Formats: sequence, C-alpha cells, structure tokens
Amino acid sequence: MPTIVVDVMPKAELLDPQGKAVSGALARLGNESFSGVRIGKRFELTVEGEVTEAVLAEARQIADEILSNAVIEDVVGIEVVE
Amino acid sequence: MPTIVVDVMPKAELLDPQGKAVSGALARLGNESFSGVRIGKRFELTVEGEVTEAVLAEARQIADEILSNAVIEDVVGIEVVE
Repeated sequence: MPTIVVDVMPKAELLDPQGKAVSGALARLGNESFSGVRIGKRFELTVEGEVTEAVLAEARQIADEILSNAVIEDVVGIEVVE
Repeated sequence: MPTIVVDVMPKAELLDPQGKAVSGALARLGNESFSGVRIGKRFELTVEGEVTEAVLAEARQIADEILSNAVIEDVVGIEVVE
C-alpha cells in the first residue's frame, strides 16, 4: 500500500532542547564531525487505495493542521513512497 | 552546511500508540483516506566541513547506537542533503 511521509521539524529560529542534549552527548563521546543536531518527527500515513491529487491535498491539510503545530514547527516535506 | 538526515521508525511488528492515537483522531474527524499512521523521528545532523565516507560511516554508527533503540526501532534512512 502506498505511504505518504510527512516530515515535521522545529522551526529554525527556535531552540530545540532535545537536539541540544543529543548534540552535547555526541561531543562528550568524542564526536567532532557534527556541529548540531535537531530532532523532528516523521509521520507515515498509509493510504487506502490510490494516491490521487485529492488524497495528497488532504495529506497536506492534515500535515499543516493536525500533525504539526505551526507556532513552533514547520512541515519540511511531504512525499509519496512505494 | 551539509546535513545528514537520519530517519528512525518504530519496528513494524510493534504497536505504535502515538500513531494509533493520531489515526483514531483522523477517523473521528471524518477522514477516510488514511488507514494507518506511524510516528517516528527525524534527526538532522549538521556536518562540520565536508561529508566524507568516514563522516557517513560515523553517522551510520551514531544512528544505530545513539539515535535509535534497536530493540524497538529501525533506522529507515540516512541521506545527505544540501
């Protein structure tokens, strides 16, 4: 069955304490390759049937209104897989 | 600066209560296009400098050992963006 993947990340101008914690842990573990970590969410929506334009539009609306909080998050990607 | 994106999802054979809750909410709101929702994490690692084979290998190791819990999660994707 096709799946629509929605990626949501904290807005760039906001602190991301979770990411900061991981970033600090990596530094403490001796890792110097990565200067920053940000953590967001990845939603996989299983589509009943075919992915039509209407279904995609619906996914976009859900991504904006339900899966993300527009005050603190951005929807950074919506793509169909399979 | 280049970014390495790591996607982590709950294992397919495990329940995903968070996803189930969103799926139920969508159904209650009258949405019938999506039969299931699973929620995972998306990590953006900012790379200091160039993305060499060594940096990628390090990212893979971090993804497996630190960013995901192999008991309940799978690393479903590692890709370089920008």
